[in-house]
Amino acid sequence: MFPLPPGSTIGILGGGQLGRMLALAAARLGFDVAILEPEEDSPASRVARTTFIGAYDDPEALAALADASDVVTYEFENVPAAAVDRLLSLGCEVAPNARALAVAQDRADEKIFLSSVGAHTVAFAAADTAADVEAAVARIGTPCLLKTRREGYDGKGQTWIESATEAAAALERIGGKPAIVEARAEFVRELSIIAARGRDGEHAVYPLGENHHEGGILRRTLAPAKVSDATLARAEQIAIQVLSGLGYVGVIGIELFELADGSLLVNEIAPRVHNTGHWTQDGCEVDQFEQHIRAVAGWPLGPTEATCHVEMTNLLGDEAASWTDYAAEPHTRVHIYGKREANPGRKMGHINRTTPFR
Amino acid sequence: MFPLPPGSTIGILGGGQLGRMLALAAARLGFDVAILEPEEDSPASRVARTTFIGAYDDPEALAALADASDVVTYEFENVPAAAVDRLLSLGCEVAPNARALAVAQDRADEKIFLSSVGAHTVAFAAADTAADVEAAVARIGTPCLLKTRREGYDGKGQTWIESATEAAAALERIGGKPAIVEARAEFVRELSIIAARGRDGEHAVYPLGENHHEGGILRRTLAPAKVSDATLARAEQIAIQVLSGLGYVGVIGIELFELADGSLLVNEIAPRVHNTGHWTQDGCEVDQFEQHIRAVAGWPLGPTEATCHVEMTNLLGDEAASWTDYAAEPHTRVHIYGKREANPGRKMGHINRTTPFR
Repeated sequence: MFPLPPGSTIGILGGGQLGRMLALAAARLGFDVAILEPEEDSPASRVARTTFIGAYDDPEALAALADASDVVTYEFENVPAAAVDRLLSLGCEVAPNARALAVAQDRADEKIFLSSVGAHTVAFAAADTAADVEAAVARIGTPCLLKTRREGYDGKGQTWIESATEAAAALERIGGKPAIVEARAEFVRELSIIAARGRDGEHAVYPLGENHHEGGILRRTLAPAKVSDATLARAEQIAIQVLSGLGYVGVIGIELFELADGSLLVNEIAPRVHNTGHWTQDGCEVDQFEQHIRAVAGWPLGPTEATCHVEMTNLLGDEAASWTDYAAEPHTRVHIYGKREANPGRKMGHINRTTPFR
Repeated sequence: MFPLPPGSTIGILGGGQLGRMLALAAARLGFDVAILEPEEDSPASRVARTTFIGAYDDPEALAALADASDVVTYEFENVPAAAVDRLLSLGCEVAPNARALAVAQDRADEKIFLSSVGAHTVAFAAADTAADVEAAVARIGTPCLLKTRREGYDGKGQTWIESATEAAAALERIGGKPAIVEARAEFVRELSIIAARGRDGEHAVYPLGENHHEGGILRRTLAPAKVSDATLARAEQIAIQVLSGLGYVGVIGIELFELADGSLLVNEIAPRVHNTGHWTQDGCEVDQFEQHIRAVAGWPLGPTEATCHVEMTNLLGDEAASWTDYAAEPHTRVHIYGKREANPGRKMGHINRTTPFR
């Protein structure tokens, strides 16, 4: 059944901006797109052939999606495991696979997996109770970070611990949920690497991005990041270890901490196209969205070399109202997601400012 | 009302591949798209938020489109004048304007307009009767070309005349419709220029493309075409004269004949995005589709410089079945239109093969 010919349908769980940009890339290659999403009038639904409105774990909606689609993928990592099970039980192809989702959904399992494939992380310990947290803090030292094992993004569901006596209060602050204690990473820079693995096991790795966050939300990516050859080689090695270790199909985003000695720790992995890969839209011949569609459809992967320097800036909340300014900059490409409400901090769009290499 | 903010709706008459690629470009800028098209399941409808199924001159369908859209544009030049009148009478903005359509729909009016703005064409004469044709042939000489004044594309609706005695038979061959007799252009090369004019009168002109036809259908465009500085300057001048002369808003395609002495004749103008401009998708920062959306939405125009060499090849009929080969070429970008039936000669997709400048 693979490679899927043009005219096949790519199913996507999730109707946000990532689903929208995946749908646009799929359409360029001649695919139809079906979206499953709980809300009406989502950004992705407005560029898709078919949209099923339903909860991600709604059995009927999932059956309709499976029936309409030749392969199903997703735009977010918190897809319920039951949803994937349901799709698989209907004989539906799902990529990336359930293992990638399971690992990415649990911060402790994620770090255990990363260690198993030789990718380093900060010191960590799983902790279900205040006593667990206290013991972990004693071992790891302070300050350290307490996070829920599951869910939470853009800095939500996490809190700093300054001393072991805070253990119980900190656990309460994150809702008393199963947690993980992480050592503070003494990093000098946040990097990320976007990579893909095809159905035949072929890898494609993009140049590194250098990321700048504000208030826990990505603000800016500079790519290709200036790094030593050794750092680049190490990052590519990590990407390939992670992809191979998961038997992965699709695009993955891997967030890295660069330490003062140039070594790299993996912060987290996202089994999907990634905000820090948006620069590829205007800096590569094949961007992360087309690459993901190619991978899940069983097509050969495309080139990943950068064709220019890119500075990607997220447009948050009412910053997107400045689109007239950005549209007037000649070497700024504007990407707007079509969201109706510009709530503060909400990702409304992004711009890619390009500069030639020479 | 202009510039239209993201979230506005671009209405498009026509649901083919040009409408589809316009819709994808509009979506990238945050616009919604509404299509009016007679057939179900058209390529553009599958990436648009809304589709109205109806004839292009169906008053109710036009009213629905006008109601849904902040501006209406089109993907083909044979939009019925009555349709534009209807949209305008409903207070709808239509771009490019009715004058551009009227000129492009009639080969005699087109050449009269071109002459009026100083753009040269082959010698020509309008001819309604066999006697008119005979007189025109006597004046223009043989061989010459007899074409219907209206309709006909990709070589349809035209016939060669080798001697004046054939006048009546030739007119019959093209259905006895009002016609135009054109001198044969002794050209050495077919070129085209894609250009845009914004709502503020700003112009943006792309580099020239060199076009190769087979059986009256575009097979290949090479861009930027290698031309002398004088030829480039003359082509840009023609583009600006045509755009200004029509008070045009949007992207236009202008087909040119290059003569042995380097001078240029205009073959025809297409008041829309154009097959010979598909190379811009992978050879420019802002392609002809985004440029057209920018223009009709009242946005500033984008840059038009080429970033690499491109060879665009149309995939006709079952050639699109070779997509696996093209997908495996690293510097070949694949564009497939999602058409269900691969009839012989039908434009099913195209590929852009890119080569760096150095």
